[in-house]
Amino acid sequence: MRAEIISVGTELLLGQIVDTNAVFLSRELANLGIDLYHRTTVGDNPERLRQALEAALGRAELVITSGGLGPTADDLTKEIVAEALGLDLILDRPSLERMEAYFRQLGRRMTENNYKQALIPVGGKALPNPHGTAPGVAVRWKERLVICLPGPPHELEPMFRTYVLPMLQQEKSGVIFSRVLKISGRGESAVAEELADLLAAQSNPTVAPLASPGEVKLRLTARADSTAAAEKLIAGLEAQIRERLGSSIFGVDDETMEEVVVRLLANRGETLAVAESCTGGLLAGRLTEVPGASAVFERGVVTYSNRSKVELLGIPEEVLTACGAVSPEVARLMAAGVKEKAGTDWGIGITGIAGPGGGTVEKPVGLVYVGLEGPEISLVKKLHFPGTRSAVRRRTVQTALDLLRLELLTKQSLSGRQK
Amino acid sequence: MRAEIISVGTELLLGQIVDTNAVFLSRELANLGIDLYHRTTVGDNPERLRQALEAALGRAELVITSGGLGPTADDLTKEIVAEALGLDLILDRPSLERMEAYFRQLGRRMTENNYKQALIPVGGKALPNPHGTAPGVAVRWKERLVICLPGPPHELEPMFRTYVLPMLQQEKSGVIFSRVLKISGRGESAVAEELADLLAAQSNPTVAPLASPGEVKLRLTARADSTAAAEKLIAGLEAQIRERLGSSIFGVDDETMEEVVVRLLANRGETLAVAESCTGGLLAGRLTEVPGASAVFERGVVTYSNRSKVELLGIPEEVLTACGAVSPEVARLMAAGVKEKAGTDWGIGITGIAGPGGGTVEKPVGLVYVGLEGPEISLVKKLHFPGTRSAVRRRTVQTALDLLRLELLTKQSLSGRQK
Repeated sequence: MRAEIISVGTELLLGQIVDTNAVFLSRELANLGIDLYHRTTVGDNPERLRQALEAALGRAELVITSGGLGPTADDLTKEIVAEALGLDLILDRPSLERMEAYFRQLGRRMTENNYKQALIPVGGKALPNPHGTAPGVAVRWKERLVICLPGPPHELEPMFRTYVLPMLQQEKSGVIFSRVLKISGRGESAVAEELADLLAAQSNPTVAPLASPGEVKLRLTARADSTAAAEKLIAGLEAQIRERLGSSIFGVDDETMEEVVVRLLANRGETLAVAESCTGGLLAGRLTEVPGASAVFERGVVTYSNRSKVELLGIPEEVLTACGAVSPEVARLMAAGVKEKAGTDWGIGITGIAGPGGGTVEKPVGLVYVGLEGPEISLVKKLHFPGTRSAVRRRTVQTALDLLRLELLTKQSLSGRQK
Repeated sequence: MRAEIISVGTELLLGQIVDTNAVFLSRELANLGIDLYHRTTVGDNPERLRQALEAALGRAELVITSGGLGPTADDLTKEIVAEALGLDLILDRPSLERMEAYFRQLGRRMTENNYKQALIPVGGKALPNPHGTAPGVAVRWKERLVICLPGPPHELEPMFRTYVLPMLQQEKSGVIFSRVLKISGRGESAVAEELADLLAAQSNPTVAPLASPGEVKLRLTARADSTAAAEKLIAGLEAQIRERLGSSIFGVDDETMEEVVVRLLANRGETLAVAESCTGGLLAGRLTEVPGASAVFERGVVTYSNRSKVELLGIPEEVLTACGAVSPEVARLMAAGVKEKAGTDWGIGITGIAGPGGGTVEKPVGLVYVGLEGPEISLVKKLHFPGTRSAVRRRTVQTALDLLRLELLTKQSLSGRQK
């Protein structure tokens, strides 16, 4: 099966936004084993969109568009698709009802121009959009499948996963199965070196490393006649990789670091409280992103001022004066203080200099101390990250979570051995 | 002048890398006032690259390619360009010498396959590459200009700035200037309706609405002979829009909501503390993303458990039992409690049900109360957001920041009137 992607939006051609949808869709198609030979971007211009669509329909069996489904007059994708396929647009009642409910819940009035979003080409299928107003559309036409998705990535991605992916999985022959191993604490090139022979020898399954901030993903992909056969191929390769990378592999597929930490804590029936300075709430924010985090997360404090460190954590003013707020001593006292006040099993304390200002020769921007207090452990880790304020903060949170994860794993294997 | 961009590389179509070159080039062309109507991506495939090139040469006067200039057998861009234009490739001695010097400096041996990188089409001009081996090429052909740039962004961007930009500045007429107005509290369709006549009448300057979670952006773009003239065109339109949307416009260009709030507080010399339950630290996290936030942000508490609400905020257990943790009473006490304990001018309290579990008929998922306590104000806002846990949390934070922003603006205009 051959596919093409058409991205629609003048803002793309003006370079105002990055076309992450095209990257997402390209990757998903690659995972499905669907060939993608062309990607085209046009503005909100009916004539050029029509030409791009006709060229794509002449070359591919699957055409996916993103963007141009909004309520305004320059949102034209569905209209042009219907025209190019010679189909009329009709009102899709369920889409209209979903849209009306969406506006009711937001407490906003639905304006006239939203109605056109509920129109779909005759014979097409509306794809519900729980994250916005514009439904997507799937239309079959002359052994071709045309799929129109909304432009905002937080609407497009779940819509693709929920509705389009199952549709495409039915179309293709054989199955492709892939599994992502998520790795922390090692860079992409170090992972690639460790796995050099596996990366060189690959054919089926394949292994592809992909770096993102604070973690490396390894995508293992196998083709086979059945899912069971593909899974078996993957399992063999995964075992080899796990033997080499060990506990650096923190999760699988979409699992996040915070989900792993919350799960490990919940399994042990243990609780956590955190005290943050330079990360300013981001660690608590990530932990509470996990549904059900309240079973293990008791509280967080963002002790940004020295006064709050004294009042909320009981850190002696003398220590702050003598050692400075960014010091291993304060990180340890923050962790111990929040653990004690909250009455939890674990406490994390973070203090550092995120920048861009505030750095000195002795304590440069990017210097961070993470304290961890647990049932049988008290440690402080000194870190030094490059990059922007935002990068320093994000890497710090990832490292703090990983530190706790590794301690929880060690405890787990120790208690396992004691049995 | 009309331009097209062709991005070459199979790794792009596999979704392995983001095409930041296309974004960079699009933005540069927009700044130059050069119209870009198509962007195409093809893999390392001679036939499809030739077709894309021929289509582009038929539609545009300027064609820029990125990628495919490397030393390996699948790097074909220059070869295909020469073929499409009917030109031979010849050795460019200065390019060869630069390449040899580059390898000497790295202490590496230059391999045979690098020689082909020094070939350029007859009549073309080599563009030196101080950051890599592959020179770029500019060729004029039948009133068209074809420019081939290397794929790595750290090679392409300086090469564009140093050699291509001056070339294009000589070709073009006029400049393009644009400005983004950021709007909160109204949806895209409501904004579009409010500005319907302006959106319908636009030619120069143009207005384009664009929705992202929790905010709407309006991009105003003008073309003129000089930047000053373009700015003047924008200013007139901006004044009209500001008159209609008023304080819904919270920022300009890249300004974030948290930057605006921190600036407004700093201007007044006032301070803030926050108490969060369902947003779990995200509000504190956004405020502390702003460099220098410590001047106005004193502390945050993430009171996830009832115990922490009692201990850290002094909320009476009876209120928690009688009204429930998610209630207007508790939101108000959270805001007042954190303001008092921290000794700040402002306090924000947030409590709600982010989901997916925990909802009831009376208190459904998405229900949130935001309390705001200030020098002369005490209010609680009831909100109800649709969407996922993550969406509810993010929208809540945006709304809480906006609530404070609007109060700070009101105070500003009141104290202005008192003068």
